[in-house]
Amino acid sequence: MNDYKVIEIKRSVFESNDREADKVRQQLKADRTFLLNLMSSPGSGKTTTLKQTIAALKDEYKIGVMEADIDSDVDAKTIAETGAKSIQLHTGGMCHLDAGMTKQGLDSFGSNEFDFVVLENVGNLVCPAEFDTGASKNAMILSVPEGDDKPLKYPLMFTVSDCVLINKIDTKSVFDFDDEAVVERIKKLNPNCEIFFISAKTGEGIDAWTNWLRKEINAWNS
Amino acid sequence: MNDYKVIEIKRSVFESNDREADKVRQQLKADRTFLLNLMSSPGSGKTTTLKQTIAALKDEYKIGVMEADIDSDVDAKTIAETGAKSIQLHTGGMCHLDAGMTKQGLDSFGSNEFDFVVLENVGNLVCPAEFDTGASKNAMILSVPEGDDKPLKYPLMFTVSDCVLINKIDTKSVFDFDDEAVVERIKKLNPNCEIFFISAKTGEGIDAWTNWLRKEINAWNS
Repeated sequence: MNDYKVIEIKRSVFESNDREADKVRQQLKADRTFLLNLMSSPGSGKTTTLKQTIAALKDEYKIGVMEADIDSDVDAKTIAETGAKSIQLHTGGMCHLDAGMTKQGLDSFGSNEFDFVVLENVGNLVCPAEFDTGASKNAMILSVPEGDDKPLKYPLMFTVSDCVLINKIDTKSVFDFDDEAVVERIKKLNPNCEIFFISAKTGEGIDAWTNWLRKEINAWNS
Repeated sequence: MNDYKVIEIKRSVFESNDREADKVRQQLKADRTFLLNLMSSPGSGKTTTLKQTIAALKDEYKIGVMEADIDSDVDAKTIAETGAKSIQLHTGGMCHLDAGMTKQGLDSFGSNEFDFVVLENVGNLVCPAEFDTGASKNAMILSVPEGDDKPLKYPLMFTVSDCVLINKIDTKSVFDFDDEAVVERIKKLNPNCEIFFISAKTGEGIDAWTNWLRKEINAWNS
């Protein structure tokens, strides 16, 4: 039995997403639940990165994962296999989650039972960047095959992310990808952004990323 | 001097996008201009594929390229280097093009001078699938690193595409990608879809794709 369920979330009725996002954050803080909003393009390795992250942190925290997807439950099934509790949010075609939709997911999930909840946002570098979900921190994944020019083309996503994971570094032999150029482009948009180079497939770099995450979770939940 | 300009397009004022899309298509047919709407995720290789496509067809057709991007002119610069005429459409943050926005681009570009115009849509597997641009045909690119499960997760995009290009087949050695599974998943959504396996980097498979395209252009413009 896979331990997940599917809920259909509806477009938020709230006029001000930012106000609603602040309320979500206040509740998370009161509940001592750290919410990470994880964004990326389709196929950048969000789910595989999550599996590594859960493996590294599951003995320290009670972890839940909310998988937002337009119309499938592929990811929730995969995550459920790790033993973490998982829920699938169906956005009904919507290309992003806003704070009201995130709240529906958190409430349905019973998020106050968890120390650490990950919201795996819809695979999209455009729309999710425009909506504050109310998360404690935003992280995004850029994978090597996508190219080092993405900060130039999707600047808002890189601007709103507290942390950027450069994934699939194990595939560098077959792609032209300039590490220095990508760091420079990200830092120009967002000087305080944390950047980690990882391979979710081989596990390389996962320690540095989960060390950062552990520090952020502990600071939020203290 | 790079031969391209940048225009800012505005959100369409038309109530019915489908009606506007049909008008765009009628005008293109009258002008004997074939418009290809090319969609994909960020980093799937749209621009590199276009360069190969232009190289294969430039002696037969007068080709123009409209590059839709949120806020950069990286791609228009690249395309201008091929010698094809190119225009950059800035969507002002919008995550897709609708038919009215496409018409603004076509009119500004003087599209009736061309036999074949490519609209490189915003890199996004969600929103562009929801809006008929008025194009003669829709094509999309799925690259090997994105994974063979994408038809399960972004079904509408695969449903509205007349043709799917599976790109970056030169990188298969470093990714698990099941050709048969992806074809089966696409055909289940869209039985008449044409599927070509290509490497825009090495040129493999480009002939089959441009043969299909040549047939479609000639049928449209006859």
